Amino acid sequence: MSTQAHARNGAALAYQARLDARSGKLTGPTANLAPGQVQANLAILPRALAADFLHFCQLNPKPCPLLAMSEPGDPALPTLGHDIDIRKDIPRYRVWKDGELVAEPTDVSEYWRDDLVSFLIGCSFSFEEAMLDNGLPVRHIEQGSNVPMYRTNIQTARAGVFGGPLVVSMRPLKAADAIRAVQVTSRFPSVHGAPVHLGDPSLIGIADINQPDYGDAVEIRPGEMPVFWACGVTPQSVVAAVRPEFCITHAPGHMLVTDLQNSRMAIL
Amino acid sequence: MSTQAHARNGAALAYQARLDARSGKLTGPTANLAPGQVQANLAILPRALAADFLHFCQLNPKPCPLLAMSEPGDPALPTLGHDIDIRKDIPRYRVWKDGELVAEPTDVSEYWRDDLVSFLIGCSFSFEEAMLDNGLPVRHIEQGSNVPMYRTNIQTARAGVFGGPLVVSMRPLKAADAIRAVQVTSRFPSVHGAPVHLGDPSLIGIADINQPDYGDAVEIRPGEMPVFWACGVTPQSVVAAVRPEFCITHAPGHMLVTDLQNSRMAIL
Repeated sequence: MSTQAHARNGAALAYQARLDARSGKLTGPTANLAPGQVQANLAILPRALAADFLHFCQLNPKPCPLLAMSEPGDPALPTLGHDIDIRKDIPRYRVWKDGELVAEPTDVSEYWRDDLVSFLIGCSFSFEEAMLDNGLPVRHIEQGSNVPMYRTNIQTARAGVFGGPLVVSMRPLKAADAIRAVQVTSRFPSVHGAPVHLGDPSLIGIADINQPDYGDAVEIRPGEMPVFWACGVTPQSVVAAVRPEFCITHAPGHMLVTDLQNSRMAIL
Repeated sequence: MSTQAHARNGAALAYQARLDARSGKLTGPTANLAPGQVQANLAILPRALAADFLHFCQLNPKPCPLLAMSEPGDPALPTLGHDIDIRKDIPRYRVWKDGELVAEPTDVSEYWRDDLVSFLIGCSFSFEEAMLDNGLPVRHIEQGSNVPMYRTNIQTARAGVFGGPLVVSMRPLKAADAIRAVQVTSRFPSVHGAPVHLGDPSLIGIADINQPDYGDAVEIRPGEMPVFWACGVTPQSVVAAVRPEFCITHAPGHMLVTDLQNSRMAIL
């Protein structure tokens, strides 16, 4: 298959995943759907908060690598894919009012407003694919569990109402693999990029590596060290702390599957 | 000054350093001479051993990044600089017979033979300059001492008579700086490249980080981890173990200053 045909095929699988979500056929997590395609985190905010949130993303590109931002009220995201309707194309959403979770629907058309702005943020699935392609182990995938995530004592840069601690994800690696992982993931700045820390967890305020704040603990084997990346849960935790009057996010693991290729996110 | 003028000026300083070594005016270490210019380690071997040693370098590019190899008996190295005479252009040499150090002259013309082949190998000075340019601390430079070096339990790949343990140099860094150092030094594969290990020294067979096998111990501060690079002392220790009937090396710290620019060694 030619490179172009490969890309077309990947985009076709991505579009099919979105159509399946739109029709209600797909309501589960998107991991392993349309391999090679970029998947994205979602935050939808009222226009009144959008400027501050955009500034927050600009100030904190490692946890909040912004892939696209919609026009107010417009459900299309033409730079991320063909015919996207962000109200329907994610398998499951979370709807928040005044900071409280009020619904987990598979379609948010009934909640739509003319002032809503969608933010699509890069996801670690992209760099994990690059790690696996380089023969590096990804423990939570081996274990079939969710990646362990931790609140740190590293503060994000504040923008308006948005601020708070950086959340990191962790993958244990041998030292030589950690060095290779720095090289591999540095190529992907738009999907969190290089690690932010490795080694002693207490240096970034993590008291117990076996008690993640989100996700599941994973085994750290003899000779391995924990390696930490900035995590896309950071913007969600930051938004939750603000308790905006209205907000929509994706349900964890239920991402937007885009027409972009992971391989094309590499800067080198 | 234009880029071309800058390069010409650097090469002019390098040539002057070589002429000073040739005339006997310069007999000391070359650190900080001709900033920005590549400096190189030297091993001169009889032709009978040269094929195996070249193969050893090819198999072990991280400790033995070969910058140039001469024709037998020819003291010129045209790819490394103008008018080089390798018999005279290094400030101080070591002459070995049957593995014993027999002289430390400033000129090896009287020892020259028609079958001698010169190997010039990249040196950590180049990537340390890149680290400093990136605001990363280099502790042994701060301390004004020699870099600490350690024999490891990592075996080099054998070629003919040449083989033995990898020797590494160590620079202590905070985790975030270690991650940046991986990025910075990965750009310089021809001068040792990325680290080979970081964190727990015992994992590569180093019993006491405060007792280096070569060079001087350096302070490791709270929150820092040791970061290890493949070291150009490896080929010297490998050659010493073979006890060749005849061999010439540079005296430690007394390098060949070349017309090549460090910045041009970056692959990206």
